Parts: sequence; C-alpha cells; structure tokens
Amino acid sequence: MISQLQKARSAYQPKVPAAIEGATKLAEGKATQSVADQEDIKKLFPNTYGMPIVTFEKATGETKAEAFNVGIILSGGQAPGGHNVISGIFDGIKKLNKDSKLYGFLGGPSGLVDHKYIELTSDIIDEYRNTGGFDIIGSGRTKLEEVEQFDKGLEICKKLNIKAVIIIGGDDSNTNACVLAEYYLAKKSGVQVIGCPKTIDGDLKNEMIETSFGFDTATKVYSEVIGNIERDANSAKKYWHFIKLMGRSASHVTLECALQTQPNVTLIGEEVEAKNQSLDDVVTYIAEAVAARAAKGLNFGTVLVPEGLIEFIPAIKKLIAELNDMLAANQAEFDTIADDKKIAYVASKLSPANAAIFNSLPVGVSRQLALERDPHGNVQVSLIETEQLLADMTAKKLAEWKKEGKFVGKFATQHHFFGYEGRCAAPSNFDADYCYSLGRVAALLIASGKTGYMSSVRNTTKPAAEWLAGGIPITAMMNMEKRNGKMKPVIQKALVKLDGGPFKFFASKRAEWAIETAFVYPGPIQYFGPTEVCDQPTKTLVLEH
Amino acid sequence: MISQLQKARSAYQPKVPAAIEGATKLAEGKATQSVADQEDIKKLFPNTYGMPIVTFEKATGETKAEAFNVGIILSGGQAPGGHNVISGIFDGIKKLNKDSKLYGFLGGPSGLVDHKYIELTSDIIDEYRNTGGFDIIGSGRTKLEEVEQFDKGLEICKKLNIKAVIIIGGDDSNTNACVLAEYYLAKKSGVQVIGCPKTIDGDLKNEMIETSFGFDTATKVYSEVIGNIERDANSAKKYWHFIKLMGRSASHVTLECALQTQPNVTLIGEEVEAKNQSLDDVVTYIAEAVAARAAKGLNFGTVLVPEGLIEFIPAIKKLIAELNDMLAANQAEFDTIADDKKIAYVASKLSPANAAIFNSLPVGVSRQLALERDPHGNVQVSLIETEQLLADMTAKKLAEWKKEGKFVGKFATQHHFFGYEGRCAAPSNFDADYCYSLGRVAALLIASGKTGYMSSVRNTTKPAAEWLAGGIPITAMMNMEKRNGKMKPVIQKALVKLDGGPFKFFASKRAEWAIETAFVYPGPIQYFGPTEVCDQPTKTLVLEH
Repeated sequence: MISQLQKARSAYQPKVPAAIEGATKLAEGKATQSVADQEDIKKLFPNTYGMPIVTFEKATGETKAEAFNVGIILSGGQAPGGHNVISGIFDGIKKLNKDSKLYGFLGGPSGLVDHKYIELTSDIIDEYRNTGGFDIIGSGRTKLEEVEQFDKGLEICKKLNIKAVIIIGGDDSNTNACVLAEYYLAKKSGVQVIGCPKTIDGDLKNEMIETSFGFDTATKVYSEVIGNIERDANSAKKYWHFIKLMGRSASHVTLECALQTQPNVTLIGEEVEAKNQSLDDVVTYIAEAVAARAAKGLNFGTVLVPEGLIEFIPAIKKLIAELNDMLAANQAEFDTIADDKKIAYVASKLSPANAAIFNSLPVGVSRQLALERDPHGNVQVSLIETEQLLADMTAKKLAEWKKEGKFVGKFATQHHFFGYEGRCAAPSNFDADYCYSLGRVAALLIASGKTGYMSSVRNTTKPAAEWLAGGIPITAMMNMEKRNGKMKPVIQKALVKLDGGPFKFFASKRAEWAIETAFVYPGPIQYFGPTEVCDQPTKTLVLEH
Repeated sequence: MISQLQKARSAYQPKVPAAIEGATKLAEGKATQSVADQEDIKKLFPNTYGMPIVTFEKATGETKAEAFNVGIILSGGQAPGGHNVISGIFDGIKKLNKDSKLYGFLGGPSGLVDHKYIELTSDIIDEYRNTGGFDIIGSGRTKLEEVEQFDKGLEICKKLNIKAVIIIGGDDSNTNACVLAEYYLAKKSGVQVIGCPKTIDGDLKNEMIETSFGFDTATKVYSEVIGNIERDANSAKKYWHFIKLMGRSASHVTLECALQTQPNVTLIGEEVEAKNQSLDDVVTYIAEAVAARAAKGLNFGTVLVPEGLIEFIPAIKKLIAELNDMLAANQAEFDTIADDKKIAYVASKLSPANAAIFNSLPVGVSRQLALERDPHGNVQVSLIETEQLLADMTAKKLAEWKKEGKFVGKFATQHHFFGYEGRCAAPSNFDADYCYSLGRVAALLIASGKTGYMSSVRNTTKPAAEWLAGGIPITAMMNMEKRNGKMKPVIQKALVKLDGGPFKFFASKRAEWAIETAFVYPGPIQYFGPTEVCDQPTKTLVLEH
C-alpha cells in the first residue's frame, strides 16, 4: 500500500537544466589540479589527474549512443533524492539508447564485490520516482579500498557488460570512486567510474559542487519540527528545548536550521574549535542567554546543538585522546577494577588537566566514557547525549547563579535529537530536480567516455532551466590527509567557514535572536503549492552565492 | 519575520458547514441525561442538567444580534487549530453584530481570575489565522474549581460587559466550564459559559463529539516522521526503532499513527491492561516479532509505544502504588540511607511480589523509581523512558534466546519520542476547517443564549459543507469518578475501545504487519495539493463512522 501523497507525488516530472533537455554537446575547459598537495595526488592518480572540467551545452539534432549498461551503488547513510538520481540515470541512458540497461548493486559497495545485483527495469523505477529512502537497492558502508575488491567488481562488470559504475555517496565514497576509476583506467579495463555527491551533512561541496543532495530536504524536515517546537515553547512558555541535530563532522545542518528557524542559541562546532572554547565556555554562553531572557520574564527558548559538538571542543578532544591511550595501556588492570570504582580509577590515571575536565563532567557522561567502549576499545563519543549533557550543566550553572542573584528565573528543559527523521523524507522539489538532473548528467558523462568524474549541476540558486550541467574531475577536489596514522588522498571535507556568507549572516543576527523571541515556523515541505513555498533552495546556498 | 508557508497559508479560507454559512435557526432536540450516575449529576447541576441537544439549521434572511462581548480562555496543552477556533469565534460574533468584541484572557484560566486580558482586534486575529500554537494569548493549567475563582472571573466579565466565556480545553477543562456555567446560572449572573473540545490525545470524544481538535494534525505530523524513520529502517536494514508517542491516559495517538504507517509492532495500553499483561509479556511480544523477522533475514523494524504504557501494566501500577505508600511511610528512614544503598533498601521494604518486579527492572529505571520524586513525594512515572526500557529489556531477552538457539539475528536499536513536534503544527485543512467551524458555532450558541454547552460539529467524515453544527449539554457527557479519593462529576474519558472499529481493523492486520515490511510513508501534511492528499480525516474517524 502506498500513501495518497506518494501516489500523487509519483506523477511529478522533475525539472532539468534546459541545456540537457534535448541534444547536447560536450565542452571541455582547461586542465585542473588538486586543491592541495598537487604532486602527491598527481603521483597517486597518474591517469585521472589534471583532466578538464566539462560542461554539457545545447546542441541541435539528437544525441544518440550505442546501447550500454550501467551499474549503480548507493554508499553510506541515506539522503533524500537517491531514488531520483537513479531514475535520472535510467531515463538518461534510455534516451541515449532504449536498449541500454541499468543494474543496481544490492546493499551498498559490497554488492559489487559479492556480485549481488538486480536489473532495474522501468516497472521498478516507476515505483520509486520522487520517493525518499534508499530501499530500491539498499545501501551499505563497505569501503572499496582493496585491489581484490576492485578485481571482483571488474569480474561482474565484464559478465554484465557494464560500461560504467556510478557510486552515489559522500566524500569518502567519492574518493574511493576515484581510486577505482584510476585502477580500472590503469588496467585499461574499459570500465568507467562516475561519482554523485550525496550527504545530508552538507560537507561535500566546493567551488564546483555547490551542494550535496539530501541536505535541502533533510534540513527542511528538521526545520519543520524545530519550528513546531519553537511555537510550543512560545505558547507554553515554560521549557527550554535542547535540540541535537545529525551531522558529526560539520555543523552545516545546524547552521541551516538556525537560519530557517531563528532559535535563541545555536552552537557551531567549527566556531567552538576555532575559539578554543572549553565545555564550560559553551555552557556559560547558553546560561547567559537563559539568564538574559529570564530577566525579561521569558523562561523558555530553544538551543540547537550539532551532533559532533563534543568532538569540536579542543579540551574534550584531548581528554578523549588520552582516555583511549590510557585505557589501551592499562586494559588488563582496568578489567580487574570493580565497576563502581572504575570512574575513580580512570580519573587517577589521567594527567591533572584531563582529570580535572573528566571530573567536571556529569556522572552519567564520565561513566559512559569510562565503561562503554566500541569494538576497537575506543570510548564512544557518539553515544554521549550532548543535548542532555548541556541541559544538565546549564541547570547546574544557573543554580549557582541563582544563589549569587545573577539569575532570577525558572529553568526547565526538554531534549530532542533529530536525524533519522530527515534522511529518508521524500525529496523536496529542489532535491527531486537536483538529483534527477545529477542522474541525467551522469548518464551523459558515461556516454562521453568520462571516468573519475563527479556529476555536477551548478547555478542552483536559479530556476532549474538555468542550471549548468557537467562533470568535475574528482582529483581536483582532493588533498592529502592523515587517516589512521597514514597520509591518504581524500576529497577535502567542507566544514562551516567562519568567514562564509551563511555563518556571517547568522553571527550578525544571533545576539538579537538570543534575547528576543524571533522564531520562524517554516512548516512542512510542500510539493504542490506556490513556487515561493515549494521551490526555494536552502538559505545556506543562497547566502553562499 | 514569518515563513513563506505561513504567508501563503494565511490566505486560506476555512470551510464551514453549509447550514451556518448564512442565516441560521436553532432546532432543539429532546432532553438529555448524563451517560451514567444520572441522579448524582442532576443533583450537582440542577440548572444545566437535562438540556436538549441543539442544532443550527439554514434559515432565510439574515441572523443578527445585539452587539455582545465574549472572553476566551485556552486551557491546558497546545493543540493545532486553537487559533482557528478563536478566529471562528471572532468572525462569528462580528457577523452577528460588527460592534461585538472579543477579549482573550492571558496565560490560561488564571487570566480570568487575575484579570489579565487583551482585546483581540482584527489586526491581531489576521496574524494568527490558520497558524499553529496557542501563542496568541498563551495557555495555562490553572484549574477553575473554587468559588473564589468564579467570583473573581465574574468581576472582570461584568467590568468588560462580557456576555459569555468560552473555554477551549480538554475533558477536565470542559468539566470545569460546566461547573462554572452552573454557578453563573445559579447566581443569575447573566454570564454564559461554552466549551470547545481540544486535545491531541483524542480522548475527549463520545457519541456527540466525534473528535477533539488537534488530533488530526498532531497524528499526521507524527506519522510523517514515523514514516520517514520506517523508510530509513527499510533502507539501512540495521535498526529496530522504538518510537514513543505522546498521550498519557489513552493510546488513540499511537493507534492512529499505526493505522497510517503500519509499523511492525504497536502497543496499545488499553489492551495491555485488559489482558492483564506483565512487563515481561509485553517484552516477549516484541521479542517474538523481532525473532520472526530475523528468521526471514529482516533485522530491522519499528515499534510504537504509547507514552502512558507503563501505567497501563497492572503489575507496574500496583508496584507504583506500593512504592508511593511505602516511601511516604518510611520517608525519615529513607533519607538516612546512602544513595547507593537506596535501591536495595526499597526492594527490602516491598512485598515479595512487587519486590520481584522491582528487581526485574533495568537498574536505570529502578534507580529512577527509588530516587526521583515529584513535589508531592510520588515516584515520577512520566520520567521513565519507556521506549529505551523496552529496547533494553528486549535486547536482554533476545540475548537469552540466542543462547537457546531461538533467535538467530542481530538486534540494534534507536529510540525516539514525539510529542512537542506535533502540538503546535499549523492545522491541517481538516483541523483548520473543524476548528474554525467550532468557533463559528460557539458564537451562535452564545447568541442563542445557551450556557453549559459544548460546541459541536458532526458528520466530519463527509465534506465540510455537509457537517452538522450544534451544541451538546456538557452534563450529558458526565459521570462520577474518584479523583484524589473523592467522587467528582467529570466528563467520561474516551479510552481506546477494544471492540471499536479502529482497534478491530488494526488487530486484524497486525500479524501481517509484524512479519512483513508493510510500512506506509504518509509524508508531510500538504495544504495546497489534490483533495485526496489534503482533505482526509484520520483513519480513526473513518473507521469509527
């Protein structure tokens, strides 16, 4: 059974750049180089380095190709619009030649290695147009890094006569796509590899890739529920709501939601790190906003917290690093300590500075850090309920201030975490159009014989007809970074730029938002209404361009 | 600043029953009696008992009245559509006479007692049409129960020349509205009191009140995010999501969301109580669904849990009752016990049956029950994170079953709680229309001189034009119940009926939903699309009528 909305939405025809509606011709720009570490990257990618940016332009007549087969892979966490990338690829290759075939590898990159796949026929594709989720073929987190995996993949490509593999994923998956492209090219295997920029986190973007798909829809879903909570806060006037938002390494999601909903307090991990703030600095900042509003009789508000915040705090980062080392070195002894003595034991083994920070944490958190470890023996930072931690510590500080007469109000809290609510929402018009266009462009890149490219659609703050379509060499986005102790070529992750448009706008407004009740209630994503309601890109995108 | 959606939505003109579009005449039915305890209720409400149900019918000409003033109160938790009730009242009294005035008492019933109010002019009303929240005048939880409060209220009514007070609230607030109506009538004060049925919980309904407002919108918001999570579960295929939904005393919200999203497991408090299930029975039921899916290779799913579940479990109810009595009796001694010995102390003081249940609870929960108490010294059941508790206990059971070879899969969980996300959403078309109509009808009831009535709009599964408009004597919904040890007249709370249409449909499907992946993804509320997407009532309402 499908919902009424899904039924109505299946009829939506995504918009594409006018340049690729009919026949196209390829325009090649000048040679590229990597964003940094050019010598290293060039050495590692002798065959795919330095390729030009390419653009598709309107041509006359009809663009046709010999029939060709394509295999697709969904890699990593879900993002709204994945199904539209796939339907765009499907329509794209069928337009070029109706006998072309699309295969979907099942359950992520492991499907390529383990030869698990299905053919995606028009019956299947039609069921998934404009829907959320990655359930058409499933996703997975297997990393394609080993030559054995590449060779197993090549086997199945040869068997199915696959001309190109498209990997739909985030920065790491696209890095791997490029490694695979280089390997297949070096082997003269004839199999091309194309990447598509996916992630709700919004951290796969650069000069040529304006945004990763799914960011638009996910942040709109989160902003809907944040707005509803704000309106509740402003109606009941009795709670401070602490709201944690998904996004481990970058605070783009939190920043975009702040721009959309204007909460009282927004924490941006990149700023906390840049200013070398301590946990106490962060808590003091929140408590000051609470106290200032309380002085005006406003004992309610909203605080947005990025999921990765705790790891951006330099002092906590150092504590966690020492904890991991110390626990590894003292594992045998640690195991003999009784559970209720473990926190004290851990504190006694840390350097004085880190012990002081460890002891300042609420018991629940220090307990979690001391006792719960992942399979590699590392402390599990991601399990810390940062929103609860900050609420508790703010309450403690305000209780002290109350004694000193610095705080005169009430402070009651609720906490929330939003992540899974947005990753599989049906794509907004923007994501539906953007993803479908990325898929159509990927098909054209394959037909043009390109490999090691990422599908690119730019000029995205304009109406879709004016979007620019083309391909960007993945090596152009790379630099060298340390991963597990070794230098590796990777796509540079885009963190929130403190001198960028979105952050600067936010920073210019936040003092006002903190003290006033300047909430905005965006409401749910609309698919059928007036264009100013249904077709707006994110504020991040607008402020960046 | 207001959002684009809010701007576009403000132009929406809510639909009303055709009968009240133009001139109306009042038709009186036969005398009513209370649903139970007729003698007691009649004695307590000599002036407002036995009044007839009234209906508004289309008339010719124009219905006009002398100018009159109305005061409104928002009582209790927020529900989508409150602002539309108010705009309906405003438009209703202005249609009857343009010199009529509307006053809003601020911050709930205390605004009436403390004489805090504003005049609601058309400028203010226009800002709030079709918006969520109760922020136009705020809400509050002060109970109107004392004669002193009634007299203070009368003072301000006289001062402002208020002909009627409208109380927008749940079952208890409407009970109090009737007590107030009776008092003002007995005093021959000339001030009428009218109630409006509000609550997202859906437990204020009966033969004559088909649904309380806000239930439609709130359950649609929850179903949107539940559907998104289901799609994520079905894409990633690695988590069981435990989702708790607001609604303390009744499981209507959970049942409606289950009907909309078809999760694998849904717990209904009323059934748990009727079947006298233990916590272990509930956990076993969940674990069996997990094991059955795991046997098919499906290591993911969704479980819906009503907020009040724990209080529906008879054994837990008994444990909590004994805990409260025991702690009250041993307070002095309890306070001398060291914190880490308190759980053991509590267990030692309980009867063997309750001690066994207490000891079977996860440490976090028994700790919370032993240590955290509300201002009255009672254990705080509402703080128990039932969704986490059930996930942990299911994991424990499955680990045992794994050893016995009865479970062969993996079991990883995520948990969520949705409540504040839905209470202040912008009303769906249904709630926008229903609430506005309730307000228009309330204005007509006042003009007809009625008091002690609840505004009623029926036939709500039909298009709005066919809705029936009228008033129901509040005493007709009452019975006697024990509250804080004393028998009180109260509106009978509507729990989920196990022989009702919605539950029976659910019960006929749940075995299939448990084992299959039959998820439905409703998507967000749409305000502008095709009518089958935008104008549907809840499944509960349809299955009840």
